[in-house]
Amino acid sequence: MTGSATYCDWVAVDWGTSTLRAWAMRGAEMVAEARSDSGMNSLDKSQFEAALLKLVDPWLGGRPMPVVACGMAGARQGWTEVPYRTVPCMPLGGGVAVPTSDTRLSVTILPGLKQDNPADVMRGEETQVAGYLSGRPGFDGVLCLPGTHSKWVEISAGEVVSFRTFMTGELFDLVSRHSVLRHSTGAGWDAAVFAEALGDTLSRPESLAAKLFAIRAETLLHDLSPAAANAMLSGLLIGAELAAARPYWLGRDVVVIGAELLAARYAKALELQGVPASLADADAMVRAGLAAARNATREAAA
Amino acid sequence: MTGSATYCDWVAVDWGTSTLRAWAMRGAEMVAEARSDSGMNSLDKSQFEAALLKLVDPWLGGRPMPVVACGMAGARQGWTEVPYRTVPCMPLGGGVAVPTSDTRLSVTILPGLKQDNPADVMRGEETQVAGYLSGRPGFDGVLCLPGTHSKWVEISAGEVVSFRTFMTGELFDLVSRHSVLRHSTGAGWDAAVFAEALGDTLSRPESLAAKLFAIRAETLLHDLSPAAANAMLSGLLIGAELAAARPYWLGRDVVVIGAELLAARYAKALELQGVPASLADADAMVRAGLAAARNATREAAA
Repeated sequence: MTGSATYCDWVAVDWGTSTLRAWAMRGAEMVAEARSDSGMNSLDKSQFEAALLKLVDPWLGGRPMPVVACGMAGARQGWTEVPYRTVPCMPLGGGVAVPTSDTRLSVTILPGLKQDNPADVMRGEETQVAGYLSGRPGFDGVLCLPGTHSKWVEISAGEVVSFRTFMTGELFDLVSRHSVLRHSTGAGWDAAVFAEALGDTLSRPESLAAKLFAIRAETLLHDLSPAAANAMLSGLLIGAELAAARPYWLGRDVVVIGAELLAARYAKALELQGVPASLADADAMVRAGLAAARNATREAAA
Repeated sequence: MTGSATYCDWVAVDWGTSTLRAWAMRGAEMVAEARSDSGMNSLDKSQFEAALLKLVDPWLGGRPMPVVACGMAGARQGWTEVPYRTVPCMPLGGGVAVPTSDTRLSVTILPGLKQDNPADVMRGEETQVAGYLSGRPGFDGVLCLPGTHSKWVEISAGEVVSFRTFMTGELFDLVSRHSVLRHSTGAGWDAAVFAEALGDTLSRPESLAAKLFAIRAETLLHDLSPAAANAMLSGLLIGAELAAARPYWLGRDVVVIGAELLAARYAKALELQGVPASLADADAMVRAGLAAARNATREAAA
């Protein structure tokens, strides 16, 4: 634990479906960052160690380097399947050590969470939740984690009580890149159009599939701009999500944990409903959660 | 008009986004069918004539063969842009002659329909509507045309009064083939699961994005079968469409015009809501509509 001879004293890893990210850490401080597109989807089980080494090799020394990983590394198609823990429970617990060929690595993968009814799962977001709670241990309330699969998480007494996942981000990506709307959407933003589209599906969520096609029709008939089409698509999808997540946010304080741009859209959407939302950076939260997991392991070992 | 020397006396064409279909016709009777994947999306403007010739060349004779086409051949990115007609109006009218290099062709493209508010468009379905009305000239009621972009059409006094498009089929295709649900869905069907999923989004349409992800979670946690996942996805999407299209079908008789399997799903979905639905074959309707357009042109010329 001297940390003097090596570049860092542990490595934090967030292994996503399409991206692998690693941070060289000294205690809770990040000293370097590396990423690659070696997400779970691009790897066989036998390739995870090499993909990790490719990123972190320059950070390794003579002794086994502790690596704490969350996310899809623990999925069924991941490096080693780490069983989900069942809510209600604390967000962290039960990391699994993974054998490696390279003796310079000492890898632990954290489990995700599952909920039996309604059936739901998360891998990675629980670590962001833990990171947030490590800085606000008494927090009771709602966390919103927008992304490919947005999560709404109810926290009470340090536990994840319940959560719900929405495919909003993945639908946005599929529809804007692969559907007929790819001819309509483009770069740019229109805040007024976003707000109106948000209100449309919040009040009439059943209209989503029709409103989506209307984006194409508005382009053809009324020259809707690509920026406005982009904001409209985002507003329609987030509005439909908010309509379904209403029990999570109505009359509550919400913390949005996400990438800056997307988190700001959700915060704006909540603000338009009169709901105060504060923001937390997803990367900082996942590192804080991985640090909390590492500390818990060291305390247990001491 | 003797029809004795050539294989057929006219050619009916339905030019879709991804498929081109042509039928050799004697009057209202089909004598041959041909198709290719030369849909609008795969062609530049200059390539349409060659794509058509490749299919219909064996049917041509010495004199110009009348070809009547509907669909995306008349779109902005099609062979020649044919302006939309505005509802309320009769489903057919105003075909445009397209010059060809090959003198054995005499091509007419039919216009689509547009609606200003809510903005909406169709190209091709208006011809199916006309085909249906040619067999039931006094029909007043609702036509449902499921497909990539499902249409609900209100008919009164022989006119299309209003219509609404839903991206249901395209969403099904994108989600089942390209989203995380591609690991869950597979071939097969489960009628009970379809009915339950349909009811879920019909009564709570806002839950769609969460219910979609729940398919993945049910696979991971409760071993949902690929067939059940397929039926669940279909039920959720059609249920959401029915929720939004309720003003079209509630308390009405509905005729579903579509491909056999898909039309049967919609008819079943309507029947579960206590709505009687009859079925008509989409291919037969489009040929009948193209025949009606050809007859109208000949009568006008006579």
